[in-house]
Amino acid sequence: MLRIGIDAMGGDHAPRVVVEGALMALRHIDSGSRLVLFGDEGAIRKLLEEHDAPSDCVDIVHTTEIITMDDHPARAYNQKADSSIRVGYRYLKEGKIDGFASAGATGAMLVGAMYSAETIRGVIRPAISALVSTLDGGNFLLLDVGLNVDCKPDVLDQYGLIGSAYTETVLGKTAPRVALLNIGEESEKGNLATKAAHELMSDNDGYNFVGNIEANEIFTGRKADVVVCDGFVGNTILKQTEGFYELARMRGIDDEYIDRLNNEFVGGTAVLGINAVVLIGHGRSSALAVQNMIRQTEKTVKSGLVNKLQDTFRNF
Amino acid sequence: MLRIGIDAMGGDHAPRVVVEGALMALRHIDSGSRLVLFGDEGAIRKLLEEHDAPSDCVDIVHTTEIITMDDHPARAYNQKADSSIRVGYRYLKEGKIDGFASAGATGAMLVGAMYSAETIRGVIRPAISALVSTLDGGNFLLLDVGLNVDCKPDVLDQYGLIGSAYTETVLGKTAPRVALLNIGEESEKGNLATKAAHELMSDNDGYNFVGNIEANEIFTGRKADVVVCDGFVGNTILKQTEGFYELARMRGIDDEYIDRLNNEFVGGTAVLGINAVVLIGHGRSSALAVQNMIRQTEKTVKSGLVNKLQDTFRNF
Repeated sequence: MLRIGIDAMGGDHAPRVVVEGALMALRHIDSGSRLVLFGDEGAIRKLLEEHDAPSDCVDIVHTTEIITMDDHPARAYNQKADSSIRVGYRYLKEGKIDGFASAGATGAMLVGAMYSAETIRGVIRPAISALVSTLDGGNFLLLDVGLNVDCKPDVLDQYGLIGSAYTETVLGKTAPRVALLNIGEESEKGNLATKAAHELMSDNDGYNFVGNIEANEIFTGRKADVVVCDGFVGNTILKQTEGFYELARMRGIDDEYIDRLNNEFVGGTAVLGINAVVLIGHGRSSALAVQNMIRQTEKTVKSGLVNKLQDTFRNF
Repeated sequence: MLRIGIDAMGGDHAPRVVVEGALMALRHIDSGSRLVLFGDEGAIRKLLEEHDAPSDCVDIVHTTEIITMDDHPARAYNQKADSSIRVGYRYLKEGKIDGFASAGATGAMLVGAMYSAETIRGVIRPAISALVSTLDGGNFLLLDVGLNVDCKPDVLDQYGLIGSAYTETVLGKTAPRVALLNIGEESEKGNLATKAAHELMSDNDGYNFVGNIEANEIFTGRKADVVVCDGFVGNTILKQTEGFYELARMRGIDDEYIDRLNNEFVGGTAVLGINAVVLIGHGRSSALAVQNMIRQTEKTVKSGLVNKLQDTFRNF
């Protein structure tokens, strides 16, 4: 049986939207999968009752502390030993859950990812990633989107490997096309890091490198399944996409594709390159976003991604 | 009398669209301004006749060579002594024209900007900039958009000064709000360069620094008139904006604001921090884009921006 851990106290509207999202997710996940909610048991039970949900539809691990967005991530992670995030990571480490997701304090979730789940041997730096919808009805994986804001070329090269493994394993694409986000198509274009990364990526036989991609081309889906970049650039691309979605809404534009740029449909970014499945959602997550974060977590656990990455980096 | 130089041979559809854009611009520029076209006199005259334009409505400086997009910029600039770009820069240097614009070979235009017009004393690195429309009907200046793809913090700080001077002088805004593009609002967020730049910019009394801005906030116009970033990031933001405009067109979205994101309405990026007014247009420029590039050039010349910048950096 798969057990998916969820931080019930994470996010601006927790625990309400988390419980609601979990109930929505129950209709979609495998009958063999079980949700484990970490948080205030009384509050969770009350919400379950409010929604007429059977009291045993999820497991609850009672915790008494919450790490907030305002807490110092590392300090709070260390000091709040009975926080939902800290206890969740302990369960993950002990194998009592198979994956862990939170729309809560991103910083503390990353501290747990690095210090509890730990980096896969051979991986220089883990990444956080995001799936972005493309015009052709599919999506591409963007990484890094903010964990490493000063990437060395060898880190970018590894992100090609990691992104390729994710796309193949979790999304089932064969020989995914990996591109390097750059400011020109030609190999000699770019800044110091992308120029050197282009050379390393061209020489790497571990994935299907298709060359540079410019930011105006990422949304078509014609060129790449994986787009590799520095965390500063990836975060900026993601935020600009969010900005476009918001301005389209403000302008009253009703378009099915732009609707899919709404991050609620993905619901979380996977932390890649660590020895566990960890997803982090947006603090503003709605119940729909939480539902999709949970489904994405289950899908990632079932894919065997972590084993695949451990194998890939065995020889590094 | 102001004299605005235009590279008639620059751009994918030159000289046709350049001549057409120049004729369109004639209806908008001051009666005291004169357009000077550099290029194949026979071809230009034929196009003027085709449009029933008086043969003396523009001045023509006949040149026999063209620097193409495929040429090596510096080599072509040095070797093609009778090219429209090279001769245009000579006229600019000799004071025979007051500004120079081209939708042609960007690289060669930049070589001319650096080696003929030269960097203003005190400026570490010139920048190229773009005006992007905002939801409130205005716009913001984004810089750098591709000239310096590895910016040191002191360069970013100077871009605050340069962008502020442009926005005040050319656009007539008082105490323009200058923001640093970053991946978080808090001062301690960012990569090595933006963290250090934030400190310098906070301490700089030469302009109105309003702190960090994230890419989802730049389009509203609520926070900043000038957005400062590294050339790699700025170029990526500009291309993503272009991509968004294109996808909206592909989706058949008809929206007045998104239409204004079309780069035709600005028509060129100003090279800032050199001792002359130089504008570079998109290779794919239409006649409308060329018209707007010419108008922008005239406006920049009339504003006295170069003197203002020379004054600003006198004490550096």
